Order: sequence, then structure tokens, then C-alpha cells
Amino acid sequence: MTISLEQAEKAIVHAKKKAGKLDTKMNIAVVDAGANLVAFARMDGAWLGSLDIAIKKAKTARFFDMNTGLIGGLSQPGGPLYNIEHSNGGLISFPGGIPIKNKKGEIIGAIGVSGSTVENDHEVADAGASAI
Amino acid sequence: MTISLEQAEKAIVHAKKKAGKLDTKMNIAVVDAGANLVAFARMDGAWLGSLDIAIKKAKTARFFDMNTGLIGGLSQPGGPLYNIEHSNGGLISFPGGIPIKNKKGEIIGAIGVSGSTVENDHEVADAGASAI
Amino acid sequence: MTISLEQAEKAIVHAKKKAGKLDTKMNIAVVDAGANLVAFARMDGAWLGSLDIAIKKAKTARFFDMNTGLIGGLSQPGGPLYNIEHSNGGLISFPGGIPIKNKKGEIIGAIGVSGSTVENDHEVADAGASAI
Amino acid sequence: MTISLEQAEKAIVHAKKKAGKLDTKMNIAVVDAGANLVAFARMDGAWLGSLDIAIKKAKTARFFDMNTGLIGGLSQPGGPLYNIEHSNGGLISFPGGIPIKNKKGEIIGAIGVSGSTVENDHEVADAGASAI
Repeated sequence: MTISLEQAEKAIVHAKKKAGKLDTKMNIAVVDAGANLVAFARMDGAWLGSLDIAIKKAKTARFFDMNTGLIGGLSQPGGPLYNIEHSNGGLISFPGGIPIKNKKGEIIGAIGVSGSTVENDHEVADAGASAI
Repeated sequence: MTISLEQAEKAIVHAKKKAGKLDTKMNIAVVDAGANLVAFARMDGAWLGSLDIAIKKAKTARFFDMNTGLIGGLSQPGGPLYNIEHSNGGLISFPGGIPIKNKKGEIIGAIGVSGSTVENDHEVADAGASAI
Repeated sequence: MTISLEQAEKAIVHAKKKAGKLDTKMNIAVVDAGANLVAFARMDGAWLGSLDIAIKKAKTARFFDMNTGLIGGLSQPGGPLYNIEHSNGGLISFPGGIPIKNKKGEIIGAIGVSGSTVENDHEVADAGASAI
Repeated sequence: MTISLEQAEKAIVHAKKKAGKLDTKMNIAVVDAGANLVAFARMDGAWLGSLDIAIKKAKTARFFDMNTGLIGGLSQPGGPLYNIEHSNGGLISFPGGIPIKNKKGEIIGAIGVSGSTVENDHEVADAGASAI
């Protein structure tokens, strides 16, 4: 099972709405079960550097089937996954990446959001993931 | 002047419609005036390998402000731009990438399409670019 | 709005003057609104390794529209943006990169300086950015 | 012996003048004896994709101490250096890169120009190299 383009675009629509409510400008990426990009949107005026970060957050969330912030908790100095960010062409391990599940609870992809505080990034990603 | 997300999404909508009429499954990428990704869509079942090609076609079209196929005509063995594809982290120089202009004729971004024959790729890209 | 070559070269002239007053040898890079290089100068005897750092500082400052040192304050172990440096092909998050604004206050590019202490790097970057 | 920043900037000034006479918009890069960038300028409106090509031409010319076009003559299908462009992170082997010599005839760096036809690129590079 993998996410469809229609689902990915629905996630982006909901993420954009939430971003608007929070008065933020976001980069929003959705990857499929294979961690490959399905849909992407950069809101006007969003940080250029967040383009790559949003995609990397989505990939990271699907690479390990967990929220990106959880990985960051393990990758700190002295932690069990110290500097795991060097793998896979670069991971992003702070909040804003969330797996996307279907109604059966199967992971079918992931969403990554970047452009504001990590709290806002996570909230916008959650709005997108929850729409599916 | 650079393309807005609204314009980029409009280009993708029109490109997807044309892809449907041609019974093809496409990866469609839109970049802004700085050659940075603004919006992307991969239709269900489209070739995975075309994801990167679509993005590279869009970038290539904006890098040189011309249709990608024109570059390929110059980069053949014996041609003046032989192996130019080694620059910029990898160019794609066959058809499917087209600059996007505003109503004044200024280039504000580019669209890249990959997933079928180069003739179909070009036709779908043209449908997207013409919608702006 | 993006920086012109004339403005970028003016920023470099002022940065070089400041570098001379501080008795330092700097690499100085200026990028445009799309984070692409516009002008660059490496002063005689400046560290070779600072060439890439200066360019990455300029890009980083434009990627997030803030001074590079601010990002470094957030990317420390335990911080909200820990290891953000793995994105965008490599960020530099210590001081020396500053956005460049036009007279209306719009960001039109950025300058990055590397070759001495981060305090000197920042001071030289500021001399360049302030000249526009 | 290696080129100084003053010499590199002089080369760029002369290259820009020639580019203006030819009514072209160029990216111009100068590298030192170590093939590392010393100075760079992108003229307003010059192709974005030529930024990387200009730098690669300058590096290629210094890597092999010859005009880039000569390498392209050897790198064709069936030629002795077929696909040498895959080395060194990507070479550019069509005209526009020229070694820079001092008055004793020693090679002290190279200039690379991109933004127009390869004939114009070469002519502008030659104007820069000849100024030293």
C-alpha cells in the first residue's frame, strides 16, 4: 500500500490551511511508501533553505517510520544514534516529519514541513497527515 | 519576477489533464526564477526514475532559458556543447522542459515533465506552461 | 528584486577595505535572491578552506533570511535545529553570513565571509552588506 | 607562482568589457595555480546554468594546462579521452576556458567564461587572459 497523488495533494491542501492559520509560510513535501517524492508545495515567500529540509524530513520519517523529532532525541552527543544524520544523503532529525497512515493504520508515506519554528512545522505536518 | 505557488499549481493541473488525455502517467515539476522547486506532482504509477528527470528538466530549462530539447541538439558528439550535461549537478537535455513566461513575456520559472515518450513529455509540459 | 552585479561588487570592495583594516585575508562571496553566486573574491594568502565556507555562509544567510550565527545558536546539541547543517548540500551556521537588503528593506541577496575569527568574519560581512 | 586577486579582477574587468562589446551576458570565473576560485562575476541577466559551467571551464583549463576546447576534441566517442568529463566532479570540455600565463610564460591560473555561443565564450575568456 502506498499513498496516491490525490491523497498527497489532499494532505498538502490541509497543511497549507493550517500554515495560513498560524501565519507561517511553509515548504511541504509528501513521499510515498518507497520514500520517493509524490507532491510538493513551497508557499510564496517561504524560506528557500526549507525546500530541502521539508523533503528530507518526509524521507526521514518514512525511512524509520517515526516522527523525525524522535530520531533527534536519539542522535544527540552520547546518544545511541549519534550523528545518524550523515546517512542516506542527509537526514533531518528535528520535528516536522510525520508518517502518514491509511485507515487500517498501515504506513503509506510521510509528510515533511519546514519554514517556521519546529513546533509550527510539526503542527502543520500533523494537519496534513491527519487529513488522510 | 518569479512564479507564485498558485501559478505553479495551475500549471500542474493543466499538465495532469493533458497527461490524462494522452493516457500517460507523468512526473511534473515547476521551478521558480531561481531554478528552485515550487511545486511537484507524481501521478500514480508513473516511473520512479522520472521523478529526478522531471526536476532536472525544469531546472535545465530555467538554467538556460530555453526548451531542454534545444540543448540536446547542441550537446551531441561533435556538437558545440558536447557533454554539457555534466554541469550543475546533472542536466537533462532531451525534450520535456520548457520555460514559463508571464503575460509580459518575462521568464518567471520553468516546467519539467517526464514519464512517457519525449514527444508526450514535451506536449504535457507545453500544456502546463501555456496555462500561465 | 535581486542584487545586481554592480551592487555585489560594491559590497566586495567595502568588505575588502574592512578586511585590510583588520589585517585579515578573507574569502568574500555574494549571492542573489535565488541563493546563486553573483560575485566572489579571495584575497591573496587567504585560507583555501575558507573559499567553500564563504560561499556556504552566503547561501545559508539567504536560505533562511537571517545571520548565519543565529542558526548556529539553534543547531547545537539539544537545540531545536540540531544538525540542520546536513541540509542543502551543507550549511555553515557560525557567524560571517548576512542577508543584504535594498533601501526598502527587501532582502535581495546575502554576503558570506570567511578567513579569520568569526568576529572578524562577521564584521567584514557587515561592512559589505551595509554598503548596499 | 600563482595569480593575485588584483590580476584576477583585472582579467574580469577586461572580460566584461569584451562581453559588452559582443552584446552578451557572461559568467566569468578565474582560478589560481591550484585550480581554486579567486574571483567570479555573473553579469545581470546571464544564464543561471552558466555559473557552474564558467567555474568548471576555468578549473578544466588549469587541470590540464590547455584550452578547454582541445580536451573536447579528444573526449569524443572513439577518442583517446572519451568521457573524461566524468572526472574531477565534472569537467567542461568545450571552448571558453583558457590558462592564464605571466610575462615569463608560466601558467599562474585560468579563466572560464560561459553565457553565449562557445565562440563568444572563448573570445571573452581570451580578452581576460590576455590582459595579464
